[in-house]
Amino acid sequence: MNRPEPPSLNEIHLAAQRINPYIHHTPVLKSAFLNQLSRADLYFKCENFQKAGAFKSRGAMNAILSLTEEELSKGVATHSSGNHAQALARAALIAGTKAYIVMPDNAPKVKIAAVEQYHGEIFFCEPTLAARESTLQKVIAQTGAELVHPYNDYRVIAGQATACLELITQIPDLDLILCPVGGGGLLSGTSLTLHYLSPETKLIGCEPQGADDAQKSFATGVLIPSMHPNTIADGLLTSLGSLTFPIIMKYVTNIITVNDEAIKVAMKYIWERMKIIVEPSAAVPLAVALSSKIDVKGLKVGIILSGGNVDINNLPWK
Amino acid sequence: MNRPEPPSLNEIHLAAQRINPYIHHTPVLKSAFLNQLSRADLYFKCENFQKAGAFKSRGAMNAILSLTEEELSKGVATHSSGNHAQALARAALIAGTKAYIVMPDNAPKVKIAAVEQYHGEIFFCEPTLAARESTLQKVIAQTGAELVHPYNDYRVIAGQATACLELITQIPDLDLILCPVGGGGLLSGTSLTLHYLSPETKLIGCEPQGADDAQKSFATGVLIPSMHPNTIADGLLTSLGSLTFPIIMKYVTNIITVNDEAIKVAMKYIWERMKIIVEPSAAVPLAVALSSKIDVKGLKVGIILSGGNVDINNLPWK
Repeated sequence: MNRPEPPSLNEIHLAAQRINPYIHHTPVLKSAFLNQLSRADLYFKCENFQKAGAFKSRGAMNAILSLTEEELSKGVATHSSGNHAQALARAALIAGTKAYIVMPDNAPKVKIAAVEQYHGEIFFCEPTLAARESTLQKVIAQTGAELVHPYNDYRVIAGQATACLELITQIPDLDLILCPVGGGGLLSGTSLTLHYLSPETKLIGCEPQGADDAQKSFATGVLIPSMHPNTIADGLLTSLGSLTFPIIMKYVTNIITVNDEAIKVAMKYIWERMKIIVEPSAAVPLAVALSSKIDVKGLKVGIILSGGNVDINNLPWK
Repeated sequence: MNRPEPPSLNEIHLAAQRINPYIHHTPVLKSAFLNQLSRADLYFKCENFQKAGAFKSRGAMNAILSLTEEELSKGVATHSSGNHAQALARAALIAGTKAYIVMPDNAPKVKIAAVEQYHGEIFFCEPTLAARESTLQKVIAQTGAELVHPYNDYRVIAGQATACLELITQIPDLDLILCPVGGGGLLSGTSLTLHYLSPETKLIGCEPQGADDAQKSFATGVLIPSMHPNTIADGLLTSLGSLTFPIIMKYVTNIITVNDEAIKVAMKYIWERMKIIVEPSAAVPLAVALSSKIDVKGLKVGIILSGGNVDINNLPWK
């Protein structure tokens, strides 16, 4: 069962303990070049080095380890073609249960293979949200599996909150954290950790212009989903959820958007200057830091590099 | 002045102290996937994260910091279109002197830009070894600059030896180190460090089949330069030198070659599984570990990832 309340500090600490044997404590890297360029002190939290290549392993692992033995025995289910699908399949494999993953039948082969390597059972459907949701309902009805939503789930949010818990332990006294926002699992989790442990640290959600539901929703106070999201940041196409939005409204300082060109430039900087592989979504916060929409001069800034799953045969600048 | 004898242990320690403020102590990474694949414990020494993107910063920095004030005032010179050129330009900039870099006039723009960012003064020449050497002689005659050869220089070798010094401190009791070999600066330096401090650790030089002078020279005991080297491992096109070859003959266990296909496969594994960017040359040791030419099962193996300078717009698998 999903919990009825946003995660408390204690629940975030419990999540960290619970997932500890199964995730990486990812390093924090710096770049003299990018510090010079941004005129700030940037600290990059490398969730691209995380198990299964993204922070999603934290939330998925915490959700699965929160289940009772009976719930666990029936497996878990979700619809996702992205990092959550891989992370949930991996977490299920570790916990000795099944993961049922609903994916659109036009999902890239590389993403299908990524789920299959962790023995996830894939159900293909038409590439519409309606088909995905109805297929998922059918799978759950047939199997009795527990739904683990990619972000609209407090167990998942508590897991994602542990990335920031590590970051503020590694680098205390950050003035600001820049965090990507799609469905808002990472952003809401990060905001809770900061609220409990480092309330003076500002937090900005960083969003692609082509999928700017979070900015619009944040500005109006009304949840406004993106109707036709279009961005190279393929991990951030989703819209905020009913659980993530209120937390974000309450604890996040602001949401800033950047266009795909700025995201590509930032991604190339990270590849070429830091020599690490990040996916487009993970480059959005650096794109914000380098934009004229914010002044980071002289600040100590944490940047969460959310993931590194990118098809290296098909790069966005080709 | 270049020193008359191969670096002693004391000189390697002095080099480490001397360059310490100007280089990164690079991390050692692991990969559960690559351990499973190789059935060994692999420890990757990440010189791709080194300043200017390669271990070459160690040797260039040590050479420049070994000069007298008078020598230093006249600048340094070399011919190289690769990582040594960048590293020497950076070291000269730090030491407040000039770097004169002779480059072939068909050098890729990205390599020219890399030297220019460190204010290196470039002299273009025809793309033949004869033209490079005669142009370099002219530059040295005009300027009085000190020649810093990319590898055939004991000061450079002592600098490169510090990568292994760090590695065996980070990970003691390695059974084996796999190290790329081009001109042999890194391999000879590594062999000296192991000889002095960890003589029970075996050391294998890893070479592209298309530039296999080190293997041939090692097998025959006679220095046989590659006449028409051809490999995607563009950092390993050079042949062993008169100073590196005798050290390698004396202290290296063996040389093993792999073909470009195997190098590409290994490079992709490092990119996709470790989420870090390495250049083709840096993938050669992993290609050896994964080949049938060696049995690493159950061994604790150090792998030196020599550099990360690759044109991400022009990848070898496109």
